[in-house]
Amino acid sequence: MSGPGGPRSDDDFGAFVAGPRTEIAPTGSGALDGLTFVVKDLIDVAGTVTGGGNPDWHGQQELAAMSAMVVQSFLQAGAAMAGKTVTDELAFSLEGENEHYGTPINPRCPERLPGGSSSGSAVAVAAGLADLGLGTDTGGSVRVPASFCGLYGYRPTYGRLPMTGVIPFAPSFDTVGLFARTPVLLSAGGLTLLQTPPLAEVRPMRLLLATDAFALADSEAQAPLCVAAARLGVVEDVEIYGGRAPEHFEAYTTLQGLDVMRALGVFLESNPRFGANIAPRFEGARALDPAVELQWRAWRREFAARMRALLPPGTLLLLPTTPGIAPLRFLRDAHAERFYQAALTLCSVAGLAGLPVVTLPLATLDGCPLGLSVLAGPGEDEVLLAFASACQAPAATSRRMS
Amino acid sequence: MSGPGGPRSDDDFGAFVAGPRTEIAPTGSGALDGLTFVVKDLIDVAGTVTGGGNPDWHGQQELAAMSAMVVQSFLQAGAAMAGKTVTDELAFSLEGENEHYGTPINPRCPERLPGGSSSGSAVAVAAGLADLGLGTDTGGSVRVPASFCGLYGYRPTYGRLPMTGVIPFAPSFDTVGLFARTPVLLSAGGLTLLQTPPLAEVRPMRLLLATDAFALADSEAQAPLCVAAARLGVVEDVEIYGGRAPEHFEAYTTLQGLDVMRALGVFLESNPRFGANIAPRFEGARALDPAVELQWRAWRREFAARMRALLPPGTLLLLPTTPGIAPLRFLRDAHAERFYQAALTLCSVAGLAGLPVVTLPLATLDGCPLGLSVLAGPGEDEVLLAFASACQAPAATSRRMS
Repeated sequence: MSGPGGPRSDDDFGAFVAGPRTEIAPTGSGALDGLTFVVKDLIDVAGTVTGGGNPDWHGQQELAAMSAMVVQSFLQAGAAMAGKTVTDELAFSLEGENEHYGTPINPRCPERLPGGSSSGSAVAVAAGLADLGLGTDTGGSVRVPASFCGLYGYRPTYGRLPMTGVIPFAPSFDTVGLFARTPVLLSAGGLTLLQTPPLAEVRPMRLLLATDAFALADSEAQAPLCVAAARLGVVEDVEIYGGRAPEHFEAYTTLQGLDVMRALGVFLESNPRFGANIAPRFEGARALDPAVELQWRAWRREFAARMRALLPPGTLLLLPTTPGIAPLRFLRDAHAERFYQAALTLCSVAGLAGLPVVTLPLATLDGCPLGLSVLAGPGEDEVLLAFASACQAPAATSRRMS
Repeated sequence: MSGPGGPRSDDDFGAFVAGPRTEIAPTGSGALDGLTFVVKDLIDVAGTVTGGGNPDWHGQQELAAMSAMVVQSFLQAGAAMAGKTVTDELAFSLEGENEHYGTPINPRCPERLPGGSSSGSAVAVAAGLADLGLGTDTGGSVRVPASFCGLYGYRPTYGRLPMTGVIPFAPSFDTVGLFARTPVLLSAGGLTLLQTPPLAEVRPMRLLLATDAFALADSEAQAPLCVAAARLGVVEDVEIYGGRAPEHFEAYTTLQGLDVMRALGVFLESNPRFGANIAPRFEGARALDPAVELQWRAWRREFAARMRALLPPGTLLLLPTTPGIAPLRFLRDAHAERFYQAALTLCSVAGLAGLPVVTLPLATLDGCPLGLSVLAGPGEDEVLLAFASACQAPAATSRRMS
């Protein structure tokens, strides 16, 4: 099930980190009474080592004295922690593969990747091993596995959730994020993280469809995605990349890479062992010229201002979450890099502009799930969660269990 | 100079933490070439213990392996670190008094408090011991000492600066912040923290004056504050508290206290020794009923939405930074609590709504400085720094050196 030689976890899906399962009883009672949650191994849980998906990182850490703020929020709201979950190495991936600890099994299409980097939390929730999953999302690390595993996923407005106790990866993009099997659970968990009550009323929303983002999807994925979008009631088509989608990919990867070097540079100097697919990404970050940062930051500010102007309160924007269904496992080829580039181009829209997103599992292709992303203006998280709550996924049909 | 029995630092103003001075050479070159900066002892500097202004906290910490992101930004932009500075205990104060390590001397009015909790950074910059000072601002901990020491101060939009490597105090309000003696230095440092270039052009701004906030100032402070505001070109008076200023104080202190218990609860269980003025504040936080949190969070969301609506791009809002000049040292009386309540009511406006602020040293009373706060909509930090750059303080006159 997992990679040869890697430590095994004690579940059938490889979702949990190796070793004894960390379980913690609730510390309070509230909106999450009776529910369970899992925690990506990039987020501190008191009394455990935050391993970050890499054995050399793990070896350099102490036991966490305190759980991350977001873990404390869930425990205080009545949820029980059910375990810590596998992550891609230091969050630097969207595939969900981990050479050291194994690649969790996608319960919806086991021959395909689970998506990452919050792979284990997504798989645990999709397999019914927990009700809610905490992950992190820098450039899609919650949204991509949610799309691949058929889950509701939430990335908050940048800065709204405290990052205390979370390993930094690319701090100007990093957020905590959430998985759930139903929109009602997503909303309950999301409001607990935000520590806000539900909205008293939800106004009708004006839905925009980003045609140039849909054009980035695989040709066979376009029809199911567009049908799902149409069902939500799109009223207007817009373009978001201004004819320069590759520039957005470059902006994102450059700014992320420079962030990564600041956040992890000291660790990288210790020459840690990375998996074959991960090492080149860190090398790419190291090779960046810091002199370009100011120019891309200015670019980012302009892009964020345009997106804010496009999304006044009451307006939402639809994008495909991923360019298609999950790639097959064990298949590193040119397609994998095309997937990574297209997925990052789609997911970076929210990251570059700091916008909140929910991904809804409203489409399928060949029986595999496909997510639709709904973006809102900054700070409109409660509106977005309420909108998601009103959406019901079609019953899962024709699962491919090859 | 400092409190009896406390360790002494090696400068005449008591701004630096005890022990050998931590100095670090720049790691790069850029907008801050040739400048020096100091770092509040709540922010990690690689190879030192982040002491947090409390000996028991200090005793429980390891050496920081990595400097906080914001420290790295300054070093990479060419600035040299000139030392770590005294903070109020775990940031829980606005006065700048520290029973364990002494109260730094306010260079502009030595018989008065420096303001806190970023007291040492403010004093070091005001005394000319460094060009820029890094602090943190949760409920005014940069703005208050900037006002008392006659400095330019900057609190960014909540969430814009990475908090990696900063001791959490009240995470839903915590920001890093900055001191400088001139607006041009403030802008250079602020843009480095934001990692954005300066704006190409600055449009004329529409200035609002919050009359009910000015009404909270001491009666003798109103005239100099209003004159300074009028010089900036106020075009419209507004009210921001809706006739319920005390409710804003209650909202802020309740939400801050519940945040503090989550962030520092584990430490508080170790029964740390706090100064006589600080212990009751932690006791107050501990006594809060968590059941009220949801209601105050909803209140906060509504207040933030109202403030955003009041501050579209191009509009700025003026408030007194503090209700008056710095209180006298060694004077704990009813006046001190009135000061704390009025200062928090003023400063909490930005904290509750996540807005960016600059404080400008444009007024004086009895020869002591008084700051004017300028708030903008969320994300408008660059506009605010450009606006500050265009403001020049009157030459300091009649310093009181009693």
